[in-house]
Amino acid sequence: MEHRLPVKIYYEDTDCLGVVYHANYLKFFERGRTELIGRLGRPIGEWNAAGCNFVVYKMEITFHRAARLGDECEVVTHLSPQSPYRMAMAQRLLRGEELLTEALVQVVCVDASLELREIPEPLLRAAGELKSRTG
Amino acid sequence: MEHRLPVKIYYEDTDCLGVVYHANYLKFFERGRTELIGRLGRPIGEWNAAGCNFVVYKMEITFHRAARLGDECEVVTHLSPQSPYRMAMAQRLLRGEELLTEALVQVVCVDASLELREIPEPLLRAAGELKSRTG
Amino acid sequence: MEHRLPVKIYYEDTDCLGVVYHANYLKFFERGRTELIGRLGRPIGEWNAAGCNFVVYKMEITFHRAARLGDECEVVTHLSPQSPYRMAMAQRLLRGEELLTEALVQVVCVDASLELREIPEPLLRAAGELKSRTG
Amino acid sequence: MEHRLPVKIYYEDTDCLGVVYHANYLKFFERGRTELIGRLGRPIGEWNAAGCNFVVYKMEITFHRAARLGDECEVVTHLSPQSPYRMAMAQRLLRGEELLTEALVQVVCVDASLELREIPEPLLRAAGELKSRTG
Repeated sequence: MEHRLPVKIYYEDTDCLGVVYHANYLKFFERGRTELIGRLGRPIGEWNAAGCNFVVYKMEITFHRAARLGDECEVVTHLSPQSPYRMAMAQRLLRGEELLTEALVQVVCVDASLELREIPEPLLRAAGELKSRTG
Repeated sequence: MEHRLPVKIYYEDTDCLGVVYHANYLKFFERGRTELIGRLGRPIGEWNAAGCNFVVYKMEITFHRAARLGDECEVVTHLSPQSPYRMAMAQRLLRGEELLTEALVQVVCVDASLELREIPEPLLRAAGELKSRTG
Repeated sequence: MEHRLPVKIYYEDTDCLGVVYHANYLKFFERGRTELIGRLGRPIGEWNAAGCNFVVYKMEITFHRAARLGDECEVVTHLSPQSPYRMAMAQRLLRGEELLTEALVQVVCVDASLELREIPEPLLRAAGELKSRTG
Repeated sequence: MEHRLPVKIYYEDTDCLGVVYHANYLKFFERGRTELIGRLGRPIGEWNAAGCNFVVYKMEITFHRAARLGDECEVVTHLSPQSPYRMAMAQRLLRGEELLTEALVQVVCVDASLELREIPEPLLRAAGELKSRTG
């Protein structure tokens, strides 16, 4: 399953080296994951209200090229459910065809007390259905 | 002259009170100003490369209602050139018809060394022309 | 009542104009307010757990001079209770003797549902006592 | 070589799940690296002025436990120069003895145009000397 989200770079994203501050790429990736999950049956706020909070457990990120103020980029997210407790998301930030940053993200589901819980079955099924449709 | 920019609320914008962190509304307003200035003849990166950096000198901001994760809002910006050295922008963050936050922002233009300079005449003219057309 | 908090500038605080991003000064001021309130009887987390959340209602901020990466600054906060529902805080960011930014902040107290409530009397009393002792 | 930096959690660091927003742990780690590099002969601003900007090329980060508003934590950084072009830093965020987050960070040195350059020899030597003294 693939999801694409446009992201534009503003002052808030940059630092005094003149390019995007490294931690801010994680915000762009999180926006992409949030939009993707928001399409799996419920918007993100309703998932949370239902006690399903999706949080990052582990992340590997490589910074290839820097984005700059005014750049129009795109976050591309591929979702692979791994187990009832874990989803892997492969994410890339592109500027046109150019790969700027890529990440492999392990996401788990926690309840309101931040205790691990199973990823809700409807979400996994929706992910599977979208996968079979989009390739 | 009026400019409107959609803004969606993500996790990065919120804090542990469950709503948008107060300082982050300033980021939304800055996105609105940046897009507005980017329509006045040159994109923001080119204005900067030409030695025109638009910075906030003074800001008055009132927080009426809080935005929450997943909200789809809109930044509305009105520009009034005040003098060759100063522009005033009246900005509002709306969720539908509801006023969440409003700000009155004094913007000046500085060169690469952050010294005050005149606001470029083409920008003021473009602002005036847009004003006569839109407002 | 006066409170002083050292603040050091890191990459995360700056933007591509080479200086601190304007919205980030609000973070420094909020750190100062949080530390001050944390000295009025309870640390901030306990105030929140007791249903007392201190939020900004209105803020007026003037940006005089810019802070840069590595600068060691100080947030100075003066608290004046205004009414049972409102506290005013006058805040300045200093680099040595130099005034960088100043703000006048109106703070109110809200409960867990973000409804306005009275500022707890022990906090007001503690503020008054500290005031008579320190200044 | 080991470096320790205290970090306190403020509202700005949290999100609406009630704990620190995942990307903000990277800011804490960056503060630790910046302080460590600032002790290797020159403060960070002078390293940058000399054309040495230290940027993250790759990062692997694991989120074990969440930090909360008001927590007093500590960033512990171990530096290992790997080659003339690359330093590895192992970093942990601790709350008392408790491990919250850990990261393995690959840092390279770039000039003002963001081109890769050798890590300055005095910095590598200072790192080596500190290492032999402290560890």
